[in-house]
Amino acid sequence: MGDFSNFGGSDEENAEIKRLKADVEADTDSFENWEKLVRACEALEGGLNRNSSPQALATLRDTYDRFLLKFPLLFGYWKKYADLEFNISGPESAEMVYERGCASITNSVDLWTEYCSFKMETTHTPHLVRELFERAADHVGLDFLAHPFWDKYLEYEERQEAQDKIFSILKRVIHIPMHQYARYFERLRQLSHNRPLLELASPDLLAQYQAEVEAETIQFGIAKTELEVERDIRAKIDAMFYQIFQRTQAETNKRWTYESEIKRPYFHVTELEHPQLVNWRKYLDFEESEGDFTRIAFLYERCLVTCAFYDEFWFRYARWMSAQDGKEEEVRNIYLRAATLYVPISRPGIRLQFAYFEEMCGRVEIARDIHASILMNLPDSVEVIISWANLERRQSGLDAAIDVYKAQIDSQAVDIYTKAALVTEWAFLLWKVKGNIDEARAVFAKNVQWYADSRHFWQKWLEFELEQPTTSALEAQHGKRIKSVFAEMRNKSRLSASIKQELGQVYLNYLQQRGGRDAMKEFLAVDRELFGPQSVSVITSIKFGIKENGAALGELDEATHLKAESRFFSYYQLHMDPDPNAQGPAIFH
Amino acid sequence: MGDFSNFGGSDEENAEIKRLKADVEADTDSFENWEKLVRACEALEGGLNRNSSPQALATLRDTYDRFLLKFPLLFGYWKKYADLEFNISGPESAEMVYERGCASITNSVDLWTEYCSFKMETTHTPHLVRELFERAADHVGLDFLAHPFWDKYLEYEERQEAQDKIFSILKRVIHIPMHQYARYFERLRQLSHNRPLLELASPDLLAQYQAEVEAETIQFGIAKTELEVERDIRAKIDAMFYQIFQRTQAETNKRWTYESEIKRPYFHVTELEHPQLVNWRKYLDFEESEGDFTRIAFLYERCLVTCAFYDEFWFRYARWMSAQDGKEEEVRNIYLRAATLYVPISRPGIRLQFAYFEEMCGRVEIARDIHASILMNLPDSVEVIISWANLERRQSGLDAAIDVYKAQIDSQAVDIYTKAALVTEWAFLLWKVKGNIDEARAVFAKNVQWYADSRHFWQKWLEFELEQPTTSALEAQHGKRIKSVFAEMRNKSRLSASIKQELGQVYLNYLQQRGGRDAMKEFLAVDRELFGPQSVSVITSIKFGIKENGAALGELDEATHLKAESRFFSYYQLHMDPDPNAQGPAIFH
Repeated sequence: MGDFSNFGGSDEENAEIKRLKADVEADTDSFENWEKLVRACEALEGGLNRNSSPQALATLRDTYDRFLLKFPLLFGYWKKYADLEFNISGPESAEMVYERGCASITNSVDLWTEYCSFKMETTHTPHLVRELFERAADHVGLDFLAHPFWDKYLEYEERQEAQDKIFSILKRVIHIPMHQYARYFERLRQLSHNRPLLELASPDLLAQYQAEVEAETIQFGIAKTELEVERDIRAKIDAMFYQIFQRTQAETNKRWTYESEIKRPYFHVTELEHPQLVNWRKYLDFEESEGDFTRIAFLYERCLVTCAFYDEFWFRYARWMSAQDGKEEEVRNIYLRAATLYVPISRPGIRLQFAYFEEMCGRVEIARDIHASILMNLPDSVEVIISWANLERRQSGLDAAIDVYKAQIDSQAVDIYTKAALVTEWAFLLWKVKGNIDEARAVFAKNVQWYADSRHFWQKWLEFELEQPTTSALEAQHGKRIKSVFAEMRNKSRLSASIKQELGQVYLNYLQQRGGRDAMKEFLAVDRELFGPQSVSVITSIKFGIKENGAALGELDEATHLKAESRFFSYYQLHMDPDPNAQGPAIFH
Repeated sequence: MGDFSNFGGSDEENAEIKRLKADVEADTDSFENWEKLVRACEALEGGLNRNSSPQALATLRDTYDRFLLKFPLLFGYWKKYADLEFNISGPESAEMVYERGCASITNSVDLWTEYCSFKMETTHTPHLVRELFERAADHVGLDFLAHPFWDKYLEYEERQEAQDKIFSILKRVIHIPMHQYARYFERLRQLSHNRPLLELASPDLLAQYQAEVEAETIQFGIAKTELEVERDIRAKIDAMFYQIFQRTQAETNKRWTYESEIKRPYFHVTELEHPQLVNWRKYLDFEESEGDFTRIAFLYERCLVTCAFYDEFWFRYARWMSAQDGKEEEVRNIYLRAATLYVPISRPGIRLQFAYFEEMCGRVEIARDIHASILMNLPDSVEVIISWANLERRQSGLDAAIDVYKAQIDSQAVDIYTKAALVTEWAFLLWKVKGNIDEARAVFAKNVQWYADSRHFWQKWLEFELEQPTTSALEAQHGKRIKSVFAEMRNKSRLSASIKQELGQVYLNYLQQRGGRDAMKEFLAVDRELFGPQSVSVITSIKFGIKENGAALGELDEATHLKAESRFFSYYQLHMDPDPNAQGPAIFH
């Protein structure tokens, strides 16, 4: 067992699979890498079958399992996997794969239809087959393109020569707005002439029609034969079916606008075009305005197969669901799938929302775990760390919140410019929550030695000093403090001139709006320092060749500059109403 | 005299001029309108001359005067005006026009050259002509394309057969880096052979060369004839001239990089291309790094003929000049020209800077007047009103500042959305400067009835409440206040959903960062209200059909929405480092 390179193939095959596995590990998001690995596993020993070696089979199964855990919405691969299992181990194993597949992608017309078809061929107990068809109907029966499934169901009942069942299926189907709605109606109408009255309508309705026919007969004083009565009742039933048909036709037409625009109804790892997202938004708006919970939820599920990588739709689904009564478990399930399976890790927004939801439900430990797990992947997400600290603040108090910052500031996984931002948040907690201005100021003053190159650090320090309440007696001291923070920023930090100009505006504003009678002299001097041409500007002429403790403090390289000057945005700050006219591929990362 | 429609032409001509004048009044910035009017005036009575009617001449002069007051940098029109005056009233009148023209555009090689040429032809007193040539040399002699001027000067001295003067001019010119520097050097070298030694160099230098030649002679023990000695001295002088030539050549080459890129050396009302501005910036950087005050100032003046409409260069000139010692009057002159003649009124930045400069110099009354005069043209400039209020605050105290806001809020010339911004500034003065939170809050609360549709009003109110210092005892009240401002904003204002989303973030942030143990319930509810789909969102479903005092409060139209949701930026906030790779026309408005 010590040999982890034996995948059951030849040495050459094993080496190839080892290489492909390494590629997958290196970039687990790459669909191409996975595809190559799957194909190589299938080809082991000249194509796998029930006589293949246990190692080769184990390799194949392990690869498929991991592949489909990563991309559970690829219904075609579930089908392939089930076929392989059928060949290798027989129907029971294949059925297990179908079950897992249908649990992973619950609304795939294709997969459910394949599953039913497989069951039809391998099971001889009709009630078991029918049970599966009914489960499938629950999951995919409402799909606009569900006709392959309904056709399969009808085909099965034809084989069983169960005319009553066929008719009963058709009676259900004609209510559903579908691409091929007309075909089912035609078939129902033809069949209906040969079906007994009792199958055509409920006893209540039949009694009503019978009464109506008799009343009409009496009105004209003519006695009808039993056959004539039945003919009249059948005419009424026909009219009723036609009414249903017309309603279904109207409902189908309403949805046609949106359905005809769906270019990719299935999941794929590549981007969608913007107009596709626009269409889904409009379709959801429409179905929500119709107000049928089942249809709305069904459409969200369809949408989230195609748009699984776009957090916008997960957010929307969760928000919509949470506005319905008593759906806490459904909301949790939406967040869970979004957070664990689909939305790229680069977008922590939905995961944070999940944490807030769990916190609201009193599951604080889970909220903590969610934060921790995002940070495993995004150790420098300032938004997430702030969110965590505030979770602790709300639930366990100020010290617990500060402990979150301290732990991250001490962590080796965290970048120094992230730490700079965390220090400012720490200071803000002391200031805003604890109400201790001196402690907050001390945090800035003590830490400037480490974070003097961070744009954010200076921005927050200036903001902190600027916002301190003053009286006219204290204004002079206030002004001195701001001036001294500005001067330190100007002289000590290695930020680019344009960032110093931006930060310097705080001081210029202060001079204009709080400064005294002589403030304009300083104002114009600072203006010249910051915005004057190179020959008279201060900020462009400072050179950082100065040795500190014997070591020269060089200029920042470009990559470091970008980090030093970065801004930290939250999910909400980045929120924008989608542009209804956007074109081209829509980024989801 | 009562007839203001008599411009001295036929009825038809008068009607046409009246119409053209009206066009000019309607859009005084339109160069085309002015040009048509000028052409029509010139054409009065079949072309004006000394026998034309006084009305026609008055019309022509009035039009030219106003046209050139508006566009003083159009040297060609000054020339044309002078020619017309020469034809109408003779040389004295023409000279007056030239004087005015050269005062308006002090560094036009063409205009000064034309003036000198005119003077040559009309004046027989050489010292008066030479005086003018010398004045011109001060103003345009250093120009890279000054050769037409120097050629004219040399031509005049040739007519006077003043070979010594010609040689003396050439000795000056060969020091100047110019496009045609080589030509003057060639001419000087040719002439130098026939000029007496005393003209070629200073007595000191001649004595030095003589001593050198004699020393060489003695070394070799040979006696040289007087002629031989002179020949040797002339060779040394030649070498000296050649050295000057080489230096001038090098200086010319350095500037050639920039000069060759100048596509439009003259003033025009249309935009420049971005690369032209880039080139001027680099050229100024270069000349500043060379450090010669006269040459730097000269280049700024040239730049500001071409780039007169671009405030960036006026700012730069003022900043550079104010960094030189003892140049207060020069700085004032730069601001004055920028503010009164060139920079479009839509850009108040340089005018405010001018006001700060005058305030710094103790001329507070002038600073006030500058603010007042900007507001005559830009009554809705929030930046200017805030600046004015703060000028009063610095110089006369808080009440004077508040009076500025009150006056603008009462003014009929000021838009309601501008007033909304001013009210928030008033409240901020009470809060930040007076330190009276309750008074500030009362200003918001009393005024919300007028300004509930202003984005800025709500932003500032939320900011105000958010920033109030609290203790844990007061936090609950603090939270209630913010919630209530948020709720009023959400329900009462007719802002668009995206703006409400943006403003609502203040409350979401508050809940996250200050809210208590149960804050996430409210957080997720607000999230849903603001960001949920239409079917569950609150902000998109509020309808403003509600009647107030019997009158329905309709939706805002699009233009009003733009104003209601506008942001107010100051000069500094809009400041951006120019993009060195920008292409296309550069907007100056």
